[in-house]
This record gives sequence, C-alpha cells and structure tokens, in this order.
Amino acid sequence: MHRIIVIAHNIRSAHNVGSLLRTAEGLGINEVVLSGYSPYPRIENDHRLPHIAERITKRIHKTALGAENSASWRYQENVETIIADLKSKKYAILGLEQAPNSKLLPEVTITANQQIALLLGSEVDGIESNLLSLCDEIIEIPMEGKKESFNVVEAATMAMYHFKHPLNR
Amino acid sequence: MHRIIVIAHNIRSAHNVGSLLRTAEGLGINEVVLSGYSPYPRIENDHRLPHIAERITKRIHKTALGAENSASWRYQENVETIIADLKSKKYAILGLEQAPNSKLLPEVTITANQQIALLLGSEVDGIESNLLSLCDEIIEIPMEGKKESFNVVEAATMAMYHFKHPLNR
Repeated sequence: MHRIIVIAHNIRSAHNVGSLLRTAEGLGINEVVLSGYSPYPRIENDHRLPHIAERITKRIHKTALGAENSASWRYQENVETIIADLKSKKYAILGLEQAPNSKLLPEVTITANQQIALLLGSEVDGIESNLLSLCDEIIEIPMEGKKESFNVVEAATMAMYHFKHPLNR
Repeated sequence: MHRIIVIAHNIRSAHNVGSLLRTAEGLGINEVVLSGYSPYPRIENDHRLPHIAERITKRIHKTALGAENSASWRYQENVETIIADLKSKKYAILGLEQAPNSKLLPEVTITANQQIALLLGSEVDGIESNLLSLCDEIIEIPMEGKKESFNVVEAATMAMYHFKHPLNR
C-alpha cells in the first residue's frame, strides 16, 4: 500500500490550513505536516501565548470543521529536517509548483508501494527555490485559463486525489 | 473534444463561489452556471439592490481573485430549466452527492466527445432529492476518514480535475 504525506510549508492562511486538513482527512492522507509559519491547532506543550494558540485554533476549525481532531497531523518548524527525515525513510519528495522542469500532474504515475511526500509552498510565493532543489520531482497542474495559479489548497486537493486514486488511471 | 459545465445550485457562501470560479477557470471548464440562491458577481441589468450586488461581488472577488472576470459563467435562477436545456443539448447530468445509488468518481470514465454537466448542491444539505432524480448519474468521492463529507468546492475540484484529465487514467 502506498503512503501519502503532505508537507504544508509557510501557508499563511488558517482558512487554507483548515480546508487542507478537512480534505486530507476525507481522502485518507496518511499525515499532514505543517511547517514554517503555517498556523496549526493547539498542541500539548504549546509554546505560543495561550490566547494566540486559541485564536488560531478557532480559525482553523472554521474550515476544518472537526477534521483537525481526526486528521493525522503534526507541526514541525524546520522543513529541511522534515524532508531529510522523509528521504531517509524512502519517501519521494514531490514539490507542487510551477517550474520549467516540472512534470504535469495527469502524467505522473506512482507504483503500488511508493511512498510520496507532497510539498506545498506559500500562497503568494510558492515553494522557495532552495526547497525546490531538494525535491525529487516538481509537479505542476495544467492551466488553461488566463489566471496564473490555483489556490494552494485546490492544487493540493487535485494532487492528493490524483495520488490517492492511481489504480483507476 | 469533450465539454464540461458545472452547475452550482444553492451554494450559500460567496467564498465558495469565488473559489469555484478560480479553479474552474484555471482548469478550463467550459462554463459555470450559478443558480438558485448562489451568490453571483454583478451583471448587466442586475435586479439586485446596487449596494447588495456590490457587496456580493466584492466577497466573491476575495477568493476568485479576478477569475470572476475571465471565467465563463452565468446566473440563471431556475435549475430545472438549466438541466432541461442541457439535456436537450445531449449533456449528461452528473450529480456530485453521497447516495446509495452513486458511482465512485475514480471509476467513472467519460468518452472522448462526451458533454457533461456536473451538478453541485448546497453546503449543508447537498443536492435536493427532486434534483437527484433528474441526474443521469450520481457521483461520489470515496471517503476514508471519520468526517462525513468534503467541502463542496474541494469535491468539485476533484471531480473537475478527474473529468478534465481523463485520457491519462
């Protein structure tokens, strides 16, 4: 059975984090790792000021609608460490980003027992170039309209769906 | 070339409508039809009070980010009329809903020249049963978590992606 992890790095919006947790939970994504300045719900030994942790938790709940309690997720600040750990566990790191050397998502196939970690970057700037260079592949969703990008959660939703249901492709 | 239309009926949230327009535009969906009480951006000969049309337009813009101007969309109140018109033009009406007689999205294939209209229902109650009975197929996304549903836009995003990129499946 393949395993799918999502790394959500430097996502600014609590709304987006909540939405990502809800969708990931529904799809049975194995884990969401929130990193960098991505907001995250209250945790044990939370180092944040209580009223700040509380406010962020409430904001995430508005779109997670409880999935923040049933999804498998954790917060780890340093994304390079997360990536190195996952690579040592034989995960392929797939960056979801527009780049000259990207592969188109509909053309990416995964094998039955492959472990993949889907890396997401910030809403405005995407994945930083130093992190792109750590990825095994850059994956891009074909765009047909005049707009230049998808919302990060919508893009992640398509990629999670694509990798979660590969056998019927 | 297949054609894909999305009917967004009785979507309460302007945030969801904006998000849907952005994603549909990026994927090259042929048209989004907003119906029932779904909010819609200002139109010519808008019958709404100007300050209300203005407020709704601004709310939709927050997530559409301009896609409301480049996406192909229209508002038509009566969804039964929309469905009847599309059926007369040989569109298959696919309702995105959890139902006993649904087919799982990953298992649904479309042929090269098929025309489909994806029907979405309200955030809380989904597609009304009288509209479900007008659908040619009910399509459901497999859920693995403890939560009972996806957000309507995330579900639509998966379905739009699935039907837009069928050749690689």
